[in-house]
Amino acid sequence: MSLTRTHTCGELNASHVGEQIILNGWVATRRDLGGVVFIDLRDRHGITQIIFTEEEKELHAQAEHLRSEFTVGILGMVRERGQETKNAKMSTGEIEVVAESLVVYSKSQTPPFEIKDGIATNEEIRLKYRYLDLRRPELQANLVLRSKLYKTVRNYYYDHDFNEVETPVLMKSTPEGARDYLVPSRVNAGRFYALPQSPQTYKQLLMVAGMDRYFQIVKCFRDEDLRADRQPEFTQIDVEMSFINEEDIYASTEGLMKEIFTTTHGYEIPAKFDRVTYDEAIRRFGSDKPDTRFGMEICDFTDIVASAEFRVFNSVATSGGAIVGINVTGGNEAIGRGAIDRLTDRVRKETGAGGLIYIRVDKDGAKSSVDKFVNAEMVQAMADRIGAKDGDLVLILAGKQPDVFTQCGDLRLMMAKEFNLIKEKQWNFLWVTEFPLVEWDEDSQRYHALHHPFTSPKPEHIGLMKTDPAKIKARAYDLVLNGNEIGGGSIRIHDTETQQNMFELLGIREDEAQEKFGFLLEAFTFGPPPHGGIAMGLDRIAMLLTGATSLRDVIAFPKNQKAQSPMDGSPGMVETNQLDDLHIKLKPIVKEL
Amino acid sequence: MSLTRTHTCGELNASHVGEQIILNGWVATRRDLGGVVFIDLRDRHGITQIIFTEEEKELHAQAEHLRSEFTVGILGMVRERGQETKNAKMSTGEIEVVAESLVVYSKSQTPPFEIKDGIATNEEIRLKYRYLDLRRPELQANLVLRSKLYKTVRNYYYDHDFNEVETPVLMKSTPEGARDYLVPSRVNAGRFYALPQSPQTYKQLLMVAGMDRYFQIVKCFRDEDLRADRQPEFTQIDVEMSFINEEDIYASTEGLMKEIFTTTHGYEIPAKFDRVTYDEAIRRFGSDKPDTRFGMEICDFTDIVASAEFRVFNSVATSGGAIVGINVTGGNEAIGRGAIDRLTDRVRKETGAGGLIYIRVDKDGAKSSVDKFVNAEMVQAMADRIGAKDGDLVLILAGKQPDVFTQCGDLRLMMAKEFNLIKEKQWNFLWVTEFPLVEWDEDSQRYHALHHPFTSPKPEHIGLMKTDPAKIKARAYDLVLNGNEIGGGSIRIHDTETQQNMFELLGIREDEAQEKFGFLLEAFTFGPPPHGGIAMGLDRIAMLLTGATSLRDVIAFPKNQKAQSPMDGSPGMVETNQLDDLHIKLKPIVKEL
Repeated sequence: MSLTRTHTCGELNASHVGEQIILNGWVATRRDLGGVVFIDLRDRHGITQIIFTEEEKELHAQAEHLRSEFTVGILGMVRERGQETKNAKMSTGEIEVVAESLVVYSKSQTPPFEIKDGIATNEEIRLKYRYLDLRRPELQANLVLRSKLYKTVRNYYYDHDFNEVETPVLMKSTPEGARDYLVPSRVNAGRFYALPQSPQTYKQLLMVAGMDRYFQIVKCFRDEDLRADRQPEFTQIDVEMSFINEEDIYASTEGLMKEIFTTTHGYEIPAKFDRVTYDEAIRRFGSDKPDTRFGMEICDFTDIVASAEFRVFNSVATSGGAIVGINVTGGNEAIGRGAIDRLTDRVRKETGAGGLIYIRVDKDGAKSSVDKFVNAEMVQAMADRIGAKDGDLVLILAGKQPDVFTQCGDLRLMMAKEFNLIKEKQWNFLWVTEFPLVEWDEDSQRYHALHHPFTSPKPEHIGLMKTDPAKIKARAYDLVLNGNEIGGGSIRIHDTETQQNMFELLGIREDEAQEKFGFLLEAFTFGPPPHGGIAMGLDRIAMLLTGATSLRDVIAFPKNQKAQSPMDGSPGMVETNQLDDLHIKLKPIVKEL
Repeated sequence: MSLTRTHTCGELNASHVGEQIILNGWVATRRDLGGVVFIDLRDRHGITQIIFTEEEKELHAQAEHLRSEFTVGILGMVRERGQETKNAKMSTGEIEVVAESLVVYSKSQTPPFEIKDGIATNEEIRLKYRYLDLRRPELQANLVLRSKLYKTVRNYYYDHDFNEVETPVLMKSTPEGARDYLVPSRVNAGRFYALPQSPQTYKQLLMVAGMDRYFQIVKCFRDEDLRADRQPEFTQIDVEMSFINEEDIYASTEGLMKEIFTTTHGYEIPAKFDRVTYDEAIRRFGSDKPDTRFGMEICDFTDIVASAEFRVFNSVATSGGAIVGINVTGGNEAIGRGAIDRLTDRVRKETGAGGLIYIRVDKDGAKSSVDKFVNAEMVQAMADRIGAKDGDLVLILAGKQPDVFTQCGDLRLMMAKEFNLIKEKQWNFLWVTEFPLVEWDEDSQRYHALHHPFTSPKPEHIGLMKTDPAKIKARAYDLVLNGNEIGGGSIRIHDTETQQNMFELLGIREDEAQEKFGFLLEAFTFGPPPHGGIAMGLDRIAMLLTGATSLRDVIAFPKNQKAQSPMDGSPGMVETNQLDDLHIKLKPIVKEL
């Protein structure tokens, strides 16, 4: 027997009083009070209170056997709750349902943790019983919001004349940057597919193919050593457009964010986002993904103190380093002598800076921790430049560039947390532009692409490719939200020559470039359009929107930090004949001591 | 220099005459006529005719250097074409653009084939230059239709309170049915992920998790020996619902098809689809995916001729076989003596039937090819039962069941093609229901699941699981369109005991079931809801909608029949150090002689 539901557990209210209805759901709680059994019945939409009265003896007896997480169907009559038992916090708080019939669809053993929000259960247990963890309202809400996010993103691009195109998951291995996941081919012995780190080459080929405007919400894969907040597979909003420039990407992406944050979620965000160049972001915020929800910008004191007798300052200044600082408003009193020692230790450990110098400002003026070596005029000049007032504390780092700026940027974030400068539900978007095209890597003694090898240099810098590559600015941009990089893209190279020069600059041999990217170089000989695009991290956007603290909380079935699924035990062992079919065998596994 | 477009190449008409506009696109053709250069400029939206007049000498000279597939920007003035040069077939046929400025964005070498519809180029060449093939209007239209299809499907499910949830691509290998693609884990030495053949277990777990209604458009993977019309990766519309029965799935899916075919494409289809049981489909059409766009149903003559002296008939009848036939209206004249001999050969070869018997009906009545052995009354009775009239031809097969029915079904399709019984743009949907739960496999000497091991038996048949499994009907259904299976699904098992019995029935040992599906069995001990779902083949639906003859024509970057991409050469060789990292090595490859 089964009871086909007429309503969900989240929708009954005073207007339904007197109706006979059917609900299906899970027993959230059962209470026996003076001969009456109360059930909170839960589904994805909400909770409804069910009552089994003593009069219905048989039914009442059945209800006494209900336990948490049993799945049931209930037929009953909606009645208004007594005034004192109404619950304004629940959407169904005005009513209750008097049960007339009950079907138990399935029973449940006692769950390993309570199905409610804010539990402190070990995450490994929650991942093992992910299907139970997902019954908790907060995770349900996260998945529902994520579904709404897909909808908003897709309809935005559909409405703006983009075509959704699926690109292959089984593609060619082109190891650049992160490691590829490989898939052995059975039909082609000794050969392998790779899972895409991004559909970059395919979306560029779609532009060559004249598709004009492409988008896709697509799974990407990186076989990285996992950090706290990484997943082996992640989801990207992937976009590419032809016959456009940076402004078109900015406008299109700003429109999308407006749609997500304002139209869908009711948060106010500006129509246009602020922009800073990469260089400015480093100098003002010590980061290429600045959190601009608070000020406390970095101030450069190098010219003021270059001539100080203090060895730290003048050796740094003469060797091309910098002396920089931030002003902590009200910091003088808040951070006393002991606190500043602890802070100095922390700064050394967490930012890698060599030490911490400070200026305390009170009603008598500015006094520094290095007054013995730096004269009072210089100290006052620093305090004045950064606008420090009575009660403030200026924190100063000295070191080589650009490291001292990023160290100071880390210090800035540390202080913002310490002094609670960041308000919730504040959305600061920022474009960071004009990234360097390449950076020198000491380890491998070669240049690396800051974005990827398909990013176009600024036209006026193309001449520097053979002479001074580090000076080249790229037509690349990142989208930053509250200090998180949520997207990045570029205008692409669309001619064979520049693309070949780029491969050369990155130390990719010509034969290697041909082997890996020959098809793209060849495609560029058939009239490619100027094009560019952007990719955004959907998981991260969902995380920021929900206020979750981990990507795992916005992914239905995430992997743990060992890239495993504790629920189903993947990755798992496979049969030898499966490996035989794939023409591979396991190497003896040597455990390191 | 660049020219930012104001319009696409498909939108200018008489209302734009006199406007200065900018177009971007590809040179489709260039003609020089009496000092005037004509360019057909193409983008995804259409073609616009551009004119370079002799007066603008410098511009005209530039235009003479344009070649096919160059990418250009053109600034010009829209003017009305002369009456005699208007082209009603083109959306832009009323106007032309007189060029005032030209920018060449990129040049093109001569393409390996012409960028136009209906080319006869070898498919391997077209796949190698897929980015050029995709410039052809027919393939562009296919991809645009596919994008529209995604949109329609997604908005249908969004609007019906389904949540879109992404399930993992890196999952557990559970080889059942087709082979898994495997992905070696670097971080977990000796272990492997598998790519999903379908997200079946995950969507069921989402139901256990209380997600209620789930959908996803999802890539699935099967490492099969490739037939003409298979791809290693394919796209599925995947749906699952809780607290429902078959009728809910039918109604929801019929609504989706109505949305796709009628609302989006303007084709009339019925609100409700016909249904036949599996047994009926086999007996009437000789197929579990009947093409019902024409009649010619199979007629069973066994009882009529069981007592005939003809050895073929009576040995077949007494050994439990069947004598069945179809009536070819007008076939008597159309298929003469020679043609019937050729048909008999073809039937033997293509259907596996032992031979072909026939009855010719003319104004004198029915005469069979076996009149010597079968008496006239029996022949007439057969003709009467199948309704054969003057001019018809009845084709008859005899053999064991159920093979003789499927052979006759193949013959039926053969005749429908021969006699052009199938009209274009006719959409016959059909639900095939009540599939057998399992079928006996002679090779492996065990039962196989007809759908998959999670399909629920009909409740009244559960008792047969230990006694007569072949008799069990499943709560499984396929959706058939014009003789193509475009979807399939079932109401699932949702209790541990039945699921364990099912594994046992399929010869899956208990430890093996635990190892592979233990997590699902365990999930079923925590109050799973009754649930069921369906999965539809998006590629196939796109193919039927576009009228394409191959799945490859509706996939942006398909693989060839060797599961390779001729464009980028995947699957490719990888570096030994990549394999070392993955703890695997290649086995020596032995070429078979």
